[in-house]
Amino acid sequence: MEDIKQALEKAVEDVRRTGPMAPSITNFVTIDFVANAQIAAGGSAAMIYMPDEGRAMAEMAPAIYINVGTILPVYEQTVPEMAKTAYEHGGYVLDPVAVGVGDLRTKLLEGMKSYPPRLIRGNASEVISVAKMWGLVSSDKGTVRGVDSTDTVVSARESAEAIARFIGGAVCVSGRDDLVTDGERTILSHGGSEYFARITGSGCSLGGVCAVYLAVADPFTAALAATNAYNVAGKRAEEEAEGTASFKVAFLDALSNLGPSDVSGCSMEVI
Amino acid sequence: MEDIKQALEKAVEDVRRTGPMAPSITNFVTIDFVANAQIAAGGSAAMIYMPDEGRAMAEMAPAIYINVGTILPVYEQTVPEMAKTAYEHGGYVLDPVAVGVGDLRTKLLEGMKSYPPRLIRGNASEVISVAKMWGLVSSDKGTVRGVDSTDTVVSARESAEAIARFIGGAVCVSGRDDLVTDGERTILSHGGSEYFARITGSGCSLGGVCAVYLAVADPFTAALAATNAYNVAGKRAEEEAEGTASFKVAFLDALSNLGPSDVSGCSMEVI
Amino acid sequence: MEDIKQALEKAVEDVRRTGPMAPSITNFVTIDFVANAQIAAGGSAAMIYMPDEGRAMAEMAPAIYINVGTILPVYEQTVPEMAKTAYEHGGYVLDPVAVGVGDLRTKLLEGMKSYPPRLIRGNASEVISVAKMWGLVSSDKGTVRGVDSTDTVVSARESAEAIARFIGGAVCVSGRDDLVTDGERTILSHGGSEYFARITGSGCSLGGVCAVYLAVADPFTAALAATNAYNVAGKRAEEEAEGTASFKVAFLDALSNLGPSDVSGCSMEVI
Repeated sequence: MEDIKQALEKAVEDVRRTGPMAPSITNFVTIDFVANAQIAAGGSAAMIYMPDEGRAMAEMAPAIYINVGTILPVYEQTVPEMAKTAYEHGGYVLDPVAVGVGDLRTKLLEGMKSYPPRLIRGNASEVISVAKMWGLVSSDKGTVRGVDSTDTVVSARESAEAIARFIGGAVCVSGRDDLVTDGERTILSHGGSEYFARITGSGCSLGGVCAVYLAVADPFTAALAATNAYNVAGKRAEEEAEGTASFKVAFLDALSNLGPSDVSGCSMEVI
Repeated sequence: MEDIKQALEKAVEDVRRTGPMAPSITNFVTIDFVANAQIAAGGSAAMIYMPDEGRAMAEMAPAIYINVGTILPVYEQTVPEMAKTAYEHGGYVLDPVAVGVGDLRTKLLEGMKSYPPRLIRGNASEVISVAKMWGLVSSDKGTVRGVDSTDTVVSARESAEAIARFIGGAVCVSGRDDLVTDGERTILSHGGSEYFARITGSGCSLGGVCAVYLAVADPFTAALAATNAYNVAGKRAEEEAEGTASFKVAFLDALSNLGPSDVSGCSMEVI
Repeated sequence: MEDIKQALEKAVEDVRRTGPMAPSITNFVTIDFVANAQIAAGGSAAMIYMPDEGRAMAEMAPAIYINVGTILPVYEQTVPEMAKTAYEHGGYVLDPVAVGVGDLRTKLLEGMKSYPPRLIRGNASEVISVAKMWGLVSSDKGTVRGVDSTDTVVSARESAEAIARFIGGAVCVSGRDDLVTDGERTILSHGGSEYFARITGSGCSLGGVCAVYLAVADPFTAALAATNAYNVAGKRAEEEAEGTASFKVAFLDALSNLGPSDVSGCSMEVI
């Protein structure tokens, strides 16, 4: 655990020092939140939708974020090009929002099995659905209800670990507690706030911040650094909040003020 | 009026208890505000743009929200599919933003006469324009200036009542005071804030919240519950606000804290 | 300088009195911020993406805002139609976000040389890139790193002045200090906040507010009024801010409360 904490602190420091760019293709609901969370964490944001821009960004950037909420027809070209290119270069973080809904989203997510992300962030039912879609588990039973978590994170442990081993990276399962695994090590991160479920984009923006940390660290460290940052900043924000919107403001404020020891000091346990 | 108040309280309670999903196709300016207002009111949000997703959502969801601001080419397929399917299932709320501007928007709104919404929310000139477009009134004279209200809500009474009778549902005319009618009963709801006209999305998000209440109540009750919620939360927010942005934060906070008696206790009068 | 201050005060008063509409085609990240900043400054906002709507808006509106971030395929039709029409009518403000990235963006920006904007707002490297693209300078060397400023504003002076003379309008170069020029007069405006670089959309929304002032004033006055408004409101907001998100709220609050003497009283120097 001491090694993990040192890796976390180094990741936070490196992001604050170098301000890495983590370009995204992401949904229209929470795009502003994703960008502002990435900047608050110390990174830099650029959102794109055109295929050639996706390819160019994925060639240059140390890490990419792909979120498949609110897809448009142009995603049919952009997402595979961006994902394949990122797979061959810096790697990408996938947020499989609403996996199972719609023909194009299904086609895009199935295709990614051939050029997988280095990190997946989703709620329990989304992670289970991806593991099933890619044929990595058979026994788990998960159902997706919109974009909210219905399974607890631990019920997705088998799926998360199977995906992490398959992609040779890490998986982050978000819920009231958060599970982070690289297929070998599995950690629960504690903290956060009930308010996270009452605003849009807490998950999407966590995925975007995972990509910022992936620009400077290995997938497991990146996933845990982002998750811990959210748990610490969310807990602080809850103390200030008088409702959902002031929670969101206080959360981004807290994220923008977070340092290395805050992130390594988050309550964690190996499971 | 006592029956109406009881229906309002039941709607608010049912939303808080069941968290109904009210998926939307909505504009890019205020999409985040719409989703967060729907969640603050106790519902659940999902935004889509692809035709097959629109159809799938409209088959499953108890209510849909369609807002025709910032349309894209894909709307030509998605909006009719979504509207037709919703018409045959749970029903939908229409926000006819910028009615009269652009060929595609006109085509989409004209088409809806054949598979009408159960609830329309707009400002006075938008409601008058829809009534004219569908041939439901001839005498009223209304002009649309951008997306702001230029007529007072009462000048749209005839149009609103004609639409409500035609669709067998309800119409909500937003302005400094708000008119809600089902064609038989017409009520003015008081409160709100001048700030509503100085931020984007107060109207759009009210339409989204109408859809949340429509998931558990009849159109008239849904329209009045949402309108009253906005008037009460807006009035409270104005007391906290130091400018337009802090008003928006305080408004969502207040909306997220609203209970049944707040909504039924809003100042109303039958006209 | 006294004449300039009087022109600034008149522009601010005229906007507050007439609430001019400045429609935009703008990126999806900051679209909500752009609209709310335009309204906070006293104008009115309408965002569009379809070609016929772009043309219609540009025929009617006293000024248009075109921001080429997050372009979609439909921009290929909409942007040239909107820009050409605005060129022949009220004129437009261009924000050349990410100039140099992507084939379509390059084509759109190259095309604008034939029907140029009356006002360009960008950071130093973006302004230098446009000047090079249009063949207006040869010696300057600027490189674009994402959407952040890497050159200081003064290094873009030659490019800015060359563009301003070519378009017969004004250029605003945003940075820690801001340079505004019409090719004859060049002014540095002081104030603002380090937080502007730590949130999305401070540049985009400044462009949108430039268009609001362009609706009532000449390009130089419009650029300087918007820039000064941002510097004064940004400085005030920094005193209130506890992090990036509360800065953004406080900034929009301050902008919504700004009057003529605030804008004319901003610290400026002729260079």
